[in-house]
Amino acid sequence: MNVLIVYAHPEPRSLNGALKDLAVSHLTARGHSVRVSDLYAMDWKATADGGDFLHHQAGEKLTYRLASKGAFADGSQSPDIAAEQEKLLWAQAVLFQFPLWWFSMPAILKGWVDRVFAAGFAYGVGVHEGERWGDRYGEGTLAGRRAMLSVTMGGRAPHYSERGVNGAVDDLLFPIQHGVLFYPGMEVLPPFTAYQVDRLKAEEWHPIAEAFKARLDGLFTDAPIAFRRQNGGHYDGQQVLKPGLGQGASGTRIHVHAPDELASRG
Amino acid sequence: MNVLIVYAHPEPRSLNGALKDLAVSHLTARGHSVRVSDLYAMDWKATADGGDFLHHQAGEKLTYRLASKGAFADGSQSPDIAAEQEKLLWAQAVLFQFPLWWFSMPAILKGWVDRVFAAGFAYGVGVHEGERWGDRYGEGTLAGRRAMLSVTMGGRAPHYSERGVNGAVDDLLFPIQHGVLFYPGMEVLPPFTAYQVDRLKAEEWHPIAEAFKARLDGLFTDAPIAFRRQNGGHYDGQQVLKPGLGQGASGTRIHVHAPDELASRG
Repeated sequence: MNVLIVYAHPEPRSLNGALKDLAVSHLTARGHSVRVSDLYAMDWKATADGGDFLHHQAGEKLTYRLASKGAFADGSQSPDIAAEQEKLLWAQAVLFQFPLWWFSMPAILKGWVDRVFAAGFAYGVGVHEGERWGDRYGEGTLAGRRAMLSVTMGGRAPHYSERGVNGAVDDLLFPIQHGVLFYPGMEVLPPFTAYQVDRLKAEEWHPIAEAFKARLDGLFTDAPIAFRRQNGGHYDGQQVLKPGLGQGASGTRIHVHAPDELASRG
Repeated sequence: MNVLIVYAHPEPRSLNGALKDLAVSHLTARGHSVRVSDLYAMDWKATADGGDFLHHQAGEKLTYRLASKGAFADGSQSPDIAAEQEKLLWAQAVLFQFPLWWFSMPAILKGWVDRVFAAGFAYGVGVHEGERWGDRYGEGTLAGRRAMLSVTMGGRAPHYSERGVNGAVDDLLFPIQHGVLFYPGMEVLPPFTAYQVDRLKAEEWHPIAEAFKARLDGLFTDAPIAFRRQNGGHYDGQQVLKPGLGQGASGTRIHVHAPDELASRG
């Protein structure tokens, strides 16, 4: 299968660099084809602006969504953007390797999303009419692909636990896993997480590597997070979750199927 | 009072630009001193790397946290970083004006956080020993300051409502409001939000402007979000919320005081 690794860390000799290298070698040994977008090595342009569109004139008023839509449609996007879109279309799974900085992606990776996830490509896809809000959340250009975050944290695991002071890791990653990855159609696997990585001792690498390899082996077989599909009958015409669904949950959790709901819906 | 506005939008003739201009004029008219960090106009460097530290040698192994800590301590940070820290220390309130892109900040603003919120300045502050995890979440360098997000969304309000398909706006902003702003000590006001801004008609500006001005008038008097303080007795030695607190809530909501808890705790 084809796997794209999007990797964002400034130091190759870091745990993130080691995990990326391990993913490349392990997936390749398993017979997969692997491509890597090493954003720091590529000197990826993080900031979305008029320079992303070949026909944009200096001084011309910029509405990013419209410029993105037009340039995606007529092939006048900056070539670095188009190249990443081509990689995403080639891939059958996308692995994101990054450190959690301020409870989100490093800016260089956020800038990859801001620029590559163009209008007409990752949003504004499908019919928007009446109660139909396009193809998103389970449908869209990237449907049929899998995605997984591999994230390192400086903090300790209990701080990210269900009642930990930082917030639960599922809540912190919801804007990425649901809002960035599920939105254009990808199935999202539970994240691979490594904690307290600033104090990692040499002997701690082995168990992390083994756990990561096990997750890589499940990239095409593990069950994805059961996010509700927008057009799967769960949301009403205003895109609000229908009464009776998400009982017993609140916050981001209501957007994941409860197991008993799945059973009762056959 | 002193107000810093951190503004991230590529087009001055946008709603974000208009809201930023309105904030400057309205706060100035009310007698406040206002400074603006216009990240696009400043051509702000979004990507955190070794270039952020004057003593970092090309090819030298980079551990960003340690390099940041050392450079903050000995005054060898990149001058653009130090200048923003000086503005934050000057400010008594910080207003962030940006469009919600992919359910988070534009990359240029995330890169402002990644670089300006240095080790020893915004994290790694205070004593870390035994069950004491430093000064964060309500304490720290920026304690005593207020912060407010002013965010524009292309999507409709119901999609961001408590049960809306995008996730509730409070959950989506939690990594920023709690993880970026409350972490180094700022008190965070509820966000100002404007929806469906891509389809804004001229006559819709007036009510938005009036609502925004009302929020600006409350910048120093409105009640902040009642996030629990890390060292306020709510969390145990592993930084997990103590049993009995956060009853009836789940997800990010457990980190906000319930009103009846406040009452019962005097």
